[in-house]
Amino acid sequence: MNDIVIHGTYFSSINRDEVITCEGYLICVDQTGTISRTIAPCEDDFNTVLQEAKQSDRLVELKDNQYILPGFIDLHIHAPQWPQAGLALDLPLADWLNHYTFPLEAKYQDLEYAKMVYKDLIHELLSQGTTTALMFGTIHTEANLVLARQSAAAGLRAYIGQVVMDNPEQTPEFYRNKSTQEALEANEEFILAMQELAKQTQSTLVPVITPRFVPSCTDETLAGLAKQAKQYDLPIQSHLSESDWEHNYAIERFGLHDTEVMEKFGLLTDKSVMAHGTQLTDSDLATLHHKQTAIAHCPISNSYFGNAVLPTKKILRQGNKIGLGSDISGGYSPSLYYNIRQAVKSSQMLEDGVDSAQPAQSRGVKSSRITMANAFYLATLAGAEALHLKAGKIAPGYQADLQIVNAHPALMNLSQDDIFQRLMYQTERSDIAQVYVG
Amino acid sequence: MNDIVIHGTYFSSINRDEVITCEGYLICVDQTGTISRTIAPCEDDFNTVLQEAKQSDRLVELKDNQYILPGFIDLHIHAPQWPQAGLALDLPLADWLNHYTFPLEAKYQDLEYAKMVYKDLIHELLSQGTTTALMFGTIHTEANLVLARQSAAAGLRAYIGQVVMDNPEQTPEFYRNKSTQEALEANEEFILAMQELAKQTQSTLVPVITPRFVPSCTDETLAGLAKQAKQYDLPIQSHLSESDWEHNYAIERFGLHDTEVMEKFGLLTDKSVMAHGTQLTDSDLATLHHKQTAIAHCPISNSYFGNAVLPTKKILRQGNKIGLGSDISGGYSPSLYYNIRQAVKSSQMLEDGVDSAQPAQSRGVKSSRITMANAFYLATLAGAEALHLKAGKIAPGYQADLQIVNAHPALMNLSQDDIFQRLMYQTERSDIAQVYVG
Repeated sequence: MNDIVIHGTYFSSINRDEVITCEGYLICVDQTGTISRTIAPCEDDFNTVLQEAKQSDRLVELKDNQYILPGFIDLHIHAPQWPQAGLALDLPLADWLNHYTFPLEAKYQDLEYAKMVYKDLIHELLSQGTTTALMFGTIHTEANLVLARQSAAAGLRAYIGQVVMDNPEQTPEFYRNKSTQEALEANEEFILAMQELAKQTQSTLVPVITPRFVPSCTDETLAGLAKQAKQYDLPIQSHLSESDWEHNYAIERFGLHDTEVMEKFGLLTDKSVMAHGTQLTDSDLATLHHKQTAIAHCPISNSYFGNAVLPTKKILRQGNKIGLGSDISGGYSPSLYYNIRQAVKSSQMLEDGVDSAQPAQSRGVKSSRITMANAFYLATLAGAEALHLKAGKIAPGYQADLQIVNAHPALMNLSQDDIFQRLMYQTERSDIAQVYVG
Repeated sequence: MNDIVIHGTYFSSINRDEVITCEGYLICVDQTGTISRTIAPCEDDFNTVLQEAKQSDRLVELKDNQYILPGFIDLHIHAPQWPQAGLALDLPLADWLNHYTFPLEAKYQDLEYAKMVYKDLIHELLSQGTTTALMFGTIHTEANLVLARQSAAAGLRAYIGQVVMDNPEQTPEFYRNKSTQEALEANEEFILAMQELAKQTQSTLVPVITPRFVPSCTDETLAGLAKQAKQYDLPIQSHLSESDWEHNYAIERFGLHDTEVMEKFGLLTDKSVMAHGTQLTDSDLATLHHKQTAIAHCPISNSYFGNAVLPTKKILRQGNKIGLGSDISGGYSPSLYYNIRQAVKSSQMLEDGVDSAQPAQSRGVKSSRITMANAFYLATLAGAEALHLKAGKIAPGYQADLQIVNAHPALMNLSQDDIFQRLMYQTERSDIAQVYVG
């Protein structure tokens, strides 16, 4: 029995390079929130199913200017940093962290503050078409559970990490775990509470092992977190070679690349998602490929803090796992549409180079440009695969995580591919008419 | 006598580096649409003026979350390309021009089509906070006059160029001026009709001499257009060293840089605005500085077609004239907010470089990053100065071209500079509550 049937035209990635258009299809969603079937207009029972849904008031009929897309999957977002999105991006990283970010994150000890911000953020993410988010919380267990409860209440699929940061040399006293033991105990408490909450609410709520990044953690803590990930079979998230500074920090402290440090401590698994990676070397990428660890590409944030462009095309060609992240608030916008656009632009800039004083031939890195279809894939199917979630695609067996978008009026004849391109380039928050999660 | 008085907080550039915040000021606008005075809350007659305006129903009172900014000045936009904004950006430039752009521009022979598109575009520009636009039309005089009439009717300050392109080697037969003579005669007709229309409508409607770019024009036409610019004392617009291809084309045809060709034909004046310029050399920039010719920086478009980043910081430091353009449809968005953001990001990417395989020290171009205040200046005061228009600033004697913007709810204490940054980073079309032109 269908719970709802949606009638309209949809776009969906079927692989990294191809987006299919299905015109005037029916999308049948069952009572578990899963897509049970998609029906083309030419199929025998198309009209029967359409009429039945109409008569039983379970039909969602799209308007002429509306299109259906899979909900987006944001693979990297710092939930507590939402109040400062778009602030202080003129500052150097150290000032940005110490004068803005750490003091802000420290405020989440106050649960009332956490409730206010997280409610607003989750509403914003859903309004922007994001139906699943892999999030950093703060070091505060209770505030992280507020984020989890509010995600469940609003229907956002939430993968939430309790941030661990205990290295006194790289963290401020006012915002730091007191010790390895305290950090790991609190983390275990968080994991168990999240798993209980997931059961209670019947929601996608997954605790994620979250060393902030190598610089902020002691060796013992990195090892302890890897052990917890294994014990509870959990996803892992962190930052990896995000900038020259981070990349070089690992070399100075360990004589190893950031990736090698993560590997050494057992933090690279097929459930790991590592953010940024702009400074990864070919050998680092090979390690990630071998470990089946995904990269969260954050193109807006990287343009401020990455010190280079992630070679997304190469990474896709090599078959590494990779998805897209907003990185609030290193990125200023929670919209994955804007990140999709920046991913394409940044890839073109990597291909062409930036300094016209250099000869055109050697200015950039050839064959680096990604297509809009590539970028859309990162924001949907590829992101879901990184999370081992059956979502990000409109097909039977996938979660019915969908966004219905109003296209701007067409002033000329548009092919289906033209319509897809315009949706990707012109959709703003106010164009997203409806969002379904399961 | 004030026509209206606006009460609220505004942001305005006072030079290339500084944006001032004026909290709770009155902006008095006279009956010619000029700002006659701004009054700080501490001034003696603040309350008197406020009460008088209130009693005579001429007070516009901003809400708590609203702010006033100068309207934006778009220095480069192809009006006829609006229907294809956001299309075909995955294609190489030649395909984009020949399969999309030229066939589309050719359609404006049909005045009904011109009316439909231009009405929609002008509405869109004003809704996005743009109050002045320097536009390319098409080769069709009547359609260009439709654009002018509709701009005047809607209140957009319009600088409009009839595109001239007569070089058979670089233009398609279906969209080309038949001869130099035909082009220049039609252009003169357009100039006179525009001047008549400006008088009739009492609007800012200025005809602009518009050789499409060097490749599309014969020598005779370039010379003839310069003569018309001088005869009628008109602004000039074109594209200049937009890409490696365009830069090299001039070298092949003339043995000169694009800038030198423009200079040689007399097309660089203090009323010229040249779009893109990503491949300009230091000597080209010195020539433009000497001639007081402005550059229209189009950061979104340049990331697709520019083959490098315009060194905006250097250009500002050297005192060249420069403003901001959307370059619809090389750029996908008519919003100068998006172009402001991309201008900052692209400048950071020029500073940092893009290819992490290069050493950090030599990857980019030091001291290239612009601030948000720089980018805002480009979109407002600097753009107005390029057009010799007294606008783009909130101060006595300036046109009252204003936008009132709704800020998103603040979730933490924000300084005035924080509020400015957030407005720049987060404003979308639906946040722009009201736009005034004069």
